[in-house]
Amino acid sequence: MTSIKIPPEHPRAESLRTREKLIECYHKGVVATAGLIAHGRGEAFDYLIGEETTKPALNAIRAAASALLLAERPVISVNGNTAALVAEETVRLARIIKAKVEVNLFYRSRERELAIKELLEKAGAHDVLGVGEDASAKIPELGSERRRVSPQGILVADVVMVPLEDGDRTEALVKMGKRVIAIDLNPLSRTARKATFTIVDNVVRATPKLVDTARKLKQDLTKCHQILLDFDNKKNLAESVALIKDRFLRLSERGGCFFSEDEERGF
Amino acid sequence: MTSIKIPPEHPRAESLRTREKLIECYHKGVVATAGLIAHGRGEAFDYLIGEETTKPALNAIRAAASALLLAERPVISVNGNTAALVAEETVRLARIIKAKVEVNLFYRSRERELAIKELLEKAGAHDVLGVGEDASAKIPELGSERRRVSPQGILVADVVMVPLEDGDRTEALVKMGKRVIAIDLNPLSRTARKATFTIVDNVVRATPKLVDTARKLKQDLTKCHQILLDFDNKKNLAESVALIKDRFLRLSERGGCFFSEDEERGF
Repeated sequence: MTSIKIPPEHPRAESLRTREKLIECYHKGVVATAGLIAHGRGEAFDYLIGEETTKPALNAIRAAASALLLAERPVISVNGNTAALVAEETVRLARIIKAKVEVNLFYRSRERELAIKELLEKAGAHDVLGVGEDASAKIPELGSERRRVSPQGILVADVVMVPLEDGDRTEALVKMGKRVIAIDLNPLSRTARKATFTIVDNVVRATPKLVDTARKLKQDLTKCHQILLDFDNKKNLAESVALIKDRFLRLSERGGCFFSEDEERGF
Repeated sequence: MTSIKIPPEHPRAESLRTREKLIECYHKGVVATAGLIAHGRGEAFDYLIGEETTKPALNAIRAAASALLLAERPVISVNGNTAALVAEETVRLARIIKAKVEVNLFYRSRERELAIKELLEKAGAHDVLGVGEDASAKIPELGSERRRVSPQGILVADVVMVPLEDGDRTEALVKMGKRVIAIDLNPLSRTARKATFTIVDNVVRATPKLVDTARKLKQDLTKCHQILLDFDNKKNLAESVALIKDRFLRLSERGGCFFSEDEERGF
């Protein structure tokens, strides 16, 4: 794909820029081929939620930030798409909540591990876990390469943030007694259902909001406890589902379309 | 992405095989990078419709087959994803309805044109239009490379089938007085709204069904006229939208998820 200049006033500039960023990182070996297809699935669900951070997403972000701030050993798990799209925000968040950052991949190769590590270090990370020999521990009950984790990181974490995750691993981590924060645009996915805190939002919008929220809440940890007491993930997820359903109905009634003219290209 | 062996009994074997096929053709230069992302969007909408050919889709297929059989100069427009996924079925359909096959690309390059032509010829096509100098005519009002068409093909066609199309071109072709058949998994897209016949289905399922339907209807052209008289694209589209909405509600009520464990990998 030839790189296309995106005029800043373009109505879908943000989404197109995100896509360009992902494709660029694909060519650098950070993103897997299957990661491009996964991004497309995310785009479709993002249209469905209206390409904005919804109220239930904001609630989940507040709960997630609270859980991360109160955690003893928080870890942020990073895959190719996350590194490509929000490396800087991820490192910023890790710094605020004093979390470790760990590379965890479904399509693991030494080259990809290193490319992602490099990207994270460029964004300011130190001690990126889960690369090479460090990914020596195993999550029980997981068959894929996703099971390999760092004994200093995910293995011993009490709260793990897993943006753009697979359901298998989310479930396995929860079974290990960890609290899992997922960022997933599909509120009906197994990841969304199994996570302790499900943020139904685009990682590009949710991560900077997590940074801001964590920064503010850090001043008031009592409030964090209250937020966690008040938060009900199932109820919150149901609200996300209801929002999508309503939007779908509204769009279909007014004969509108999800995809603007610049978006719905055939290829 | 390393090629993964897909066991035939796998519940989502069909979707995974389709994806592998697309990725293989991506590496051969047939599919554009943006085509992989577009495929992901399609996957999401396919989950929403339940990964099966719905009743409204079957109605649209019957109408489309009728329009193609009654056409004087039918043309099937082929892009990278279509060639990758249904080259043989497309050629088979073209033979039954005596249509021309024309390459039309958003990301046009001589290499891609030739790679797609080669794929179509391997599938049995002769005289593939829209390659090189042949794409010398222009569709008015279109800015992209999509405007370049063959003066023997799309330019003079009365019925154009455009699987996996963009809304711009669908609209432009309709404005030129052509009947346009679209295959699009998103019933609210501009393509879906603007086409004369909208098949809301996966191209992988819809194309072989078009072949069978056209083969049967060819024996009874009077029936084709009746089918066209009875068909209402707007009404039919509304039925597709209603089906998705109902399925979404059902899934959310039973707490089910769209993506099976093998599907929702993070990358």
